[in-house]
Amino acid sequence: MTPSFNPPIRRLMGPGPSDVHPRVLGAMARPTIGHLDPEFSRMMEEVKDLLRYAFKTKNALTIPVSGPGSVGMETCFVNLVEAGDKVIVCQNGAFGGRMKENVERCGGVPIMVIDEWGKPVDIEKIEDVLKTNSDIKAVAFVHAETSTGVQSDAAAICALARKYGILSIVDAVTSLGGTPVLTDEWGADAVYSGSQKCLSCMPGISPVTISEKAASVVRSRNHKVQSWFMDLNLVMGYWGGEGARVYHHTAPINPLYAIHEALVMLKEEGLEQAWERHAKMHNALRVGIEAMGLSLIVEEAYRLPQLNTVSIPEGVDEAAVRSTLLSRYNLEIGAGLGGLAGKVWRVGLMGQSATSEHVILFLSAMEDVLG
Amino acid sequence: MTPSFNPPIRRLMGPGPSDVHPRVLGAMARPTIGHLDPEFSRMMEEVKDLLRYAFKTKNALTIPVSGPGSVGMETCFVNLVEAGDKVIVCQNGAFGGRMKENVERCGGVPIMVIDEWGKPVDIEKIEDVLKTNSDIKAVAFVHAETSTGVQSDAAAICALARKYGILSIVDAVTSLGGTPVLTDEWGADAVYSGSQKCLSCMPGISPVTISEKAASVVRSRNHKVQSWFMDLNLVMGYWGGEGARVYHHTAPINPLYAIHEALVMLKEEGLEQAWERHAKMHNALRVGIEAMGLSLIVEEAYRLPQLNTVSIPEGVDEAAVRSTLLSRYNLEIGAGLGGLAGKVWRVGLMGQSATSEHVILFLSAMEDVLG
Repeated sequence: MTPSFNPPIRRLMGPGPSDVHPRVLGAMARPTIGHLDPEFSRMMEEVKDLLRYAFKTKNALTIPVSGPGSVGMETCFVNLVEAGDKVIVCQNGAFGGRMKENVERCGGVPIMVIDEWGKPVDIEKIEDVLKTNSDIKAVAFVHAETSTGVQSDAAAICALARKYGILSIVDAVTSLGGTPVLTDEWGADAVYSGSQKCLSCMPGISPVTISEKAASVVRSRNHKVQSWFMDLNLVMGYWGGEGARVYHHTAPINPLYAIHEALVMLKEEGLEQAWERHAKMHNALRVGIEAMGLSLIVEEAYRLPQLNTVSIPEGVDEAAVRSTLLSRYNLEIGAGLGGLAGKVWRVGLMGQSATSEHVILFLSAMEDVLG
Repeated sequence: MTPSFNPPIRRLMGPGPSDVHPRVLGAMARPTIGHLDPEFSRMMEEVKDLLRYAFKTKNALTIPVSGPGSVGMETCFVNLVEAGDKVIVCQNGAFGGRMKENVERCGGVPIMVIDEWGKPVDIEKIEDVLKTNSDIKAVAFVHAETSTGVQSDAAAICALARKYGILSIVDAVTSLGGTPVLTDEWGADAVYSGSQKCLSCMPGISPVTISEKAASVVRSRNHKVQSWFMDLNLVMGYWGGEGARVYHHTAPINPLYAIHEALVMLKEEGLEQAWERHAKMHNALRVGIEAMGLSLIVEEAYRLPQLNTVSIPEGVDEAAVRSTLLSRYNLEIGAGLGGLAGKVWRVGLMGQSATSEHVILFLSAMEDVLG
C-alpha cells in the first residue's frame, strides 16, 4: 500500500511558492461545497472585490483564473492576440521569452525589445518601435522578473502604450502584494499574477484583471479564442454578474477558499503596509548579505525587494549549498535560471516569507554552510 | 474588513463535486513545499503510479494536469489535433458539444455522430463514417455523460478505432473510480478525467493518460501545440522522468497532496470494490426512487450508477425542490443541463457520496420536500 504523504516542514525562500500561513492552509481544508452553491457564489464576489483591492483597480473583469500563473498569462494572450496581430514583447529575463512563445502560438507577430538579463526594460527602445510602426496592437512586459530580480517601470511603459493607443499586458506574478501594482493609476489593460508569490497562497490560482478597453477587444474579436477553457467570453458567464452563474468549468473550490483567506489577510495587514514590510525585510537581507561579502547582481534602483539574486562566490558548488540548506535547515532557496544558472541564487522574501525570522534564518544558515 | 469564509456543511449529491473525505481535506492543508523539492518529486512519482492504478494502464505518460477536467480535455485535443485534422466527435449530451468546440478551436474538422440526449453513442454510425472516409485522425467520445447519466461502450468504440488505425480520445471525467475505465484493455489512446467526481478530491486537477502511440503523435507534430501551458512536450520535462525536473509551470502543490491522498484511499478500498460500491448504492437509490413513483430516464443497460437522471413529476417546481433540499437538509443535487433542463434532476453517487447514508438522506429528504 502507498502511505499518505507527509511533507517535510520547509522554510520557502526561493522564487515561489512562499510559506503559506496556517490560516490559509486551514481555509483550504474547509469542506468542499458546490460551484453553483449560493454561499459559494457570495464568496466569489468577495474574492473579486479583494482582488480589486490587491490590484488597485475598479475593473469589473477581475477574477482568479483556475490555474497557475502560466494560465493567467496565456489567458491574457489568447484573448487579446489574434492571428497576425503585432505585439511588442519586452524580454529582459526568462518570462519575456515565455510571452514571446505565447504571442507566436496565438499566430501573432512578436516584435522583440531585448534587454540584458539583470537590467530593466529600456523604454526608449519600445518608443523607437512605436515610432516606426503604426499597426502594433499591444506591448507586453514583465513588471517583476522572477528570473533576475529586476523591476521595470510599469507606469512609464503603460503610459507609452496609452500615448500610442495600444494595449498593455503586464506580468505581475511576482510583484502583486509585494511592491506597488497600480493597475488603474498606470492605466494597464491586462495584468496577471500568481497565488504563490507575495500573496502566500498555495500555487494553482492566477489573479487576472482586464480593463474595460481590453474587455471590449475580447468581446469584439474576429475569431473565437483558440482556447475554450481560457475564453473570457465564456468564463465571464460564470464569474461575471452577481446573478445566475452559467456553468463553464467546475471552479477549484478549496483553492479559492485559500486565495480568499490570503487576500483577507492582505487586507487586514493593509496593502501599503505589506509593501513596506517587503522593503524593510529586503533591506535587512541586503545588509546581512553584504556583511558576508556577498552581493546582489541587480542595481539598487531596479531591485525587487521580494526576489534577491545573490551572486555565487567563486569556487562554491552552488547546488551543494542549496542542497545542504535544505537538508540541514529545511530552507529552500532557488537556483539561477537560463543565463544566470550557476551564477546566482534566488532568495525570495515573498508574503509570509518576508519576516525577520526568515532573514535571520537565511543569513545564519548561509554563514554556516559557506563556512 | 472582509471576514474569513466559512462554508456551510453540505452533502454533495449533484453532478460533482462530490463529498471530500476529511483525510483528503487534511492532506490539502499540509504545509506547502517547493515544486522542485526532492520530497515533492518523490510524491509526484507516487501520484503517477496511483493514477496508473486508477486508469488500469501502464502508460508512461499518465499525469495529473494542473487544472479542472476541462483543461484535461483541452490538453488531449490541442496535443493530438492539428489544423485540418478530421476528428469524429460523438455527441449524445453536453460534453460531446464541448469536444466539438475543442476540435474546431484547434483548426480541426469535426465530423459529428449525433445521438439523442439520454442514449448511448451508436457505434454503427461511427463505423459508417469510417467506411466512407479514409483520412480520419481520431474518434472522440464521452464514456460517462454527466449531463444525461448515460454510459457508452468504450471498449467497442476503442476497438473500432484500432481496427481503422485511428486514435481514440475518451472523456472519463465522471467514470474514473466509479465504473470500469480499462485504458489498456480497451487500447484507448487518450483518456482524461476530473478529480472531483468518483475520486472525491476537490475540483481543480485533471488526471490524463496517453498511450505510447498517441505520445509519439504529440512528439512528431508538424506545428507547435497552440497552448504553451498544455503542450505535453514541455509538461513532460517536469512530470517525465524520475530524474531532474525542468521547471515548466509551478505545480499546484496542495491540490496534488489531495489527489495523492484520494488515490491512496481508492487503492486501500480497491478499485473493483469501489466500482461494486457505486453499483450497490445505485441499486438502493433506484429502488427507493421507484418506490416514490419517480423514474430514471436512462434505460437500465446504459445507466451510470454514479449519476442518476431522475425525471421531474408534472407540476413540480424543480428549482424550488433543489433550493429546499439545500436550505432544509444542506443537500445538493443538480439541475438538468441543456435539453434536459427542467426535465430531470441529476443525483450523484460519486466517490465519498456513494454511501448508504447518502442514499437514505436523499430519499427521506426528497419524500419530505415532494410532500
